[in-house]
Amino acid sequence: MKIKYSLLKKEKNTDARMGTIETNYGTFKTPMFMPVGTRATVKGLSPQELYDLNCGIILANTYHLWLRPGEDLISKAGGLHKFMNYNGPILTDSGGFQVFSLARPKDITDEGVNFKSHIDGTKLFLTPEKSIEIQNKLDSDIAMSFDECIPYPATYDYVKKSVERTLKWALRGKKVFNNERQSLFGIVQGGEYEDMRKYCALSLQKMDFDGYAIGGTSVGEDKETMYKMVQYSTKYLPTDKVRYLMGVGDPIDIIEGVIRGVDIFDCVLPTRLARHANAFTKYGKINLKNSKYKEDFTPLEEDCDCYACKNFTKAYIRHLVTLDEMLGARLLSIHNIRFLTRLTEDLRECIKNDNILEYKEEFVKNYYGSASYLDKKTTGQGD
Amino acid sequence: MKIKYSLLKKEKNTDARMGTIETNYGTFKTPMFMPVGTRATVKGLSPQELYDLNCGIILANTYHLWLRPGEDLISKAGGLHKFMNYNGPILTDSGGFQVFSLARPKDITDEGVNFKSHIDGTKLFLTPEKSIEIQNKLDSDIAMSFDECIPYPATYDYVKKSVERTLKWALRGKKVFNNERQSLFGIVQGGEYEDMRKYCALSLQKMDFDGYAIGGTSVGEDKETMYKMVQYSTKYLPTDKVRYLMGVGDPIDIIEGVIRGVDIFDCVLPTRLARHANAFTKYGKINLKNSKYKEDFTPLEEDCDCYACKNFTKAYIRHLVTLDEMLGARLLSIHNIRFLTRLTEDLRECIKNDNILEYKEEFVKNYYGSASYLDKKTTGQGD
Repeated sequence: MKIKYSLLKKEKNTDARMGTIETNYGTFKTPMFMPVGTRATVKGLSPQELYDLNCGIILANTYHLWLRPGEDLISKAGGLHKFMNYNGPILTDSGGFQVFSLARPKDITDEGVNFKSHIDGTKLFLTPEKSIEIQNKLDSDIAMSFDECIPYPATYDYVKKSVERTLKWALRGKKVFNNERQSLFGIVQGGEYEDMRKYCALSLQKMDFDGYAIGGTSVGEDKETMYKMVQYSTKYLPTDKVRYLMGVGDPIDIIEGVIRGVDIFDCVLPTRLARHANAFTKYGKINLKNSKYKEDFTPLEEDCDCYACKNFTKAYIRHLVTLDEMLGARLLSIHNIRFLTRLTEDLRECIKNDNILEYKEEFVKNYYGSASYLDKKTTGQGD
Repeated sequence: MKIKYSLLKKEKNTDARMGTIETNYGTFKTPMFMPVGTRATVKGLSPQELYDLNCGIILANTYHLWLRPGEDLISKAGGLHKFMNYNGPILTDSGGFQVFSLARPKDITDEGVNFKSHIDGTKLFLTPEKSIEIQNKLDSDIAMSFDECIPYPATYDYVKKSVERTLKWALRGKKVFNNERQSLFGIVQGGEYEDMRKYCALSLQKMDFDGYAIGGTSVGEDKETMYKMVQYSTKYLPTDKVRYLMGVGDPIDIIEGVIRGVDIFDCVLPTRLARHANAFTKYGKINLKNSKYKEDFTPLEEDCDCYACKNFTKAYIRHLVTLDEMLGARLLSIHNIRFLTRLTEDLRECIKNDNILEYKEEFVKNYYGSASYLDKKTTGQGD
């Protein structure tokens, strides 16, 4: 079946909303953060650990799975859920983001994108139709339209041409889409220009997608600009469909996204930070390699309910990451993902209680101290 | 409390025996295989996974923990169990094996061993007293005497001198031993010479250790020689104490050891093989990188009850190990350790049923085909 979004409540003072998404693999609550399982595995974690983290839905990578092990193999295994034995909802991206980072500008045509494999340099050609065909075979719960991922900043003229291409590609993908169990999302592009975001959002709605994503953010713009891009998109999206902000996982960006009406987020940040010995905490990121944790026999966070915090001390995790022991990255990944899913749980509670702005203020004070975050640069989204 | 060994039954046709070992952290059955947690972590696995593997007891490495994070830090954490949050029995080795592989012959004196740290070349000096002092602080359930690990082959004269040194070192360690919750084992050396093994075994018993280990095997000798070394040792050990064969984890060696009256074994083999994409199976080791598993949607072993076999296919694990994804090594480690703990479960059943020789014959036929294994070289034991 197609997914079904139900809006349960809007927050009084902002556009924040809570709801549920019903899928073939169960129903989960929104707002929700999706961990990234690039190559059909969230690095280091088992499916059981993902269920325990209450992450609701995970993301897998069409480009990477197309190359290895190939969509036909996964299809033979019975689809992505069976292949990786993950019995929760899965969203696949379109492969666009990875492909655009590998292609040169002159290799991008209306037909599709020419680029070379990052593995062996093989020449490859990805089109909207091919991306959908691969995703149909992967049999994820939600597939994404193939869109043009433009750099930031881009001129108004460039963005305008690009939005037209993204819209044509969305339509071409929709036409060949052929999987009744799967839902298809359109992606709103348009850079920092409100009229372009509006035009793109409204045009996609005419094509009637099962949900809508916001693309082209978190590509090096400052946070204030990013939040505008989000605002200019959700403003023109229907309230009865899911809104997904792609590649965003910085805690404050999730809060600001939710305030602007976003339902789901994904990012490699929690697992990538973990592999670099970093942990999210209420008081900002900490690096466990820092010698000050050498004899710190307290958990990463006292009030966290994750397996890492319930069972291990900073001193032990520091020992593991210093020696590059696998368990270190695993425990930090568990904590960092749980940090973000707990954040979304908090935000759902705030939406119930109409106090999300107070929550944000308190969060920012703890996380950044007195510093402002609006002029900070956003980071890349891809893996 | 000190450990308590109870002999429950001897097999009728061999020296194989089953029993239980009572420790501060629960009672486990023997024969038993101990996974190696070199640096206070069995590579990639959580304590919960180790409990689920029914491995009874694990081994940690005194040399590695001495260097990093240091025994004082672990002592401050409340001992090794609390530091790594492992609530099952732990045995620590003496550090001897690692140290001897780093030292030059002229650096080995009656006083102790001079060597350079494998990390930064710092000059270090390890003595029997220091090894015990470190282990007392680590607070494992079983500590090992510091012994001289000699190469193979070694002349009778060399072995004789070395056994005398090992005996003196055992006594020196015993004298300074100071931890009431911990048990101390002596180590039988003596190379391939029965009278030396006998002399060493009987001399150690006069000192009255809490259990006895067999050292100096699995250092490059052929399997037939190794089995003799084991036989020459267990023959002269008391029946009311634990016998531990150090550094042995090849399945057939475990069977042959049990047949000669050994109770516990340890080896890095299952986890090291896992990190090199290998899995134990009834029909011998397999390498998951082999392309023949590309579309093999069956588990590593149909009748295995481990998390990897219950949930994943060879095709998926092949995908993971090909891409060097952490989950691959983790799943293979789980399977390989479980393979060996299941083997010991089988052997306990055989001891009950007095049919261990039939079991061995069948096992060898499946594992090696028609080939003989007696002339195969043993592999190194250290990590």
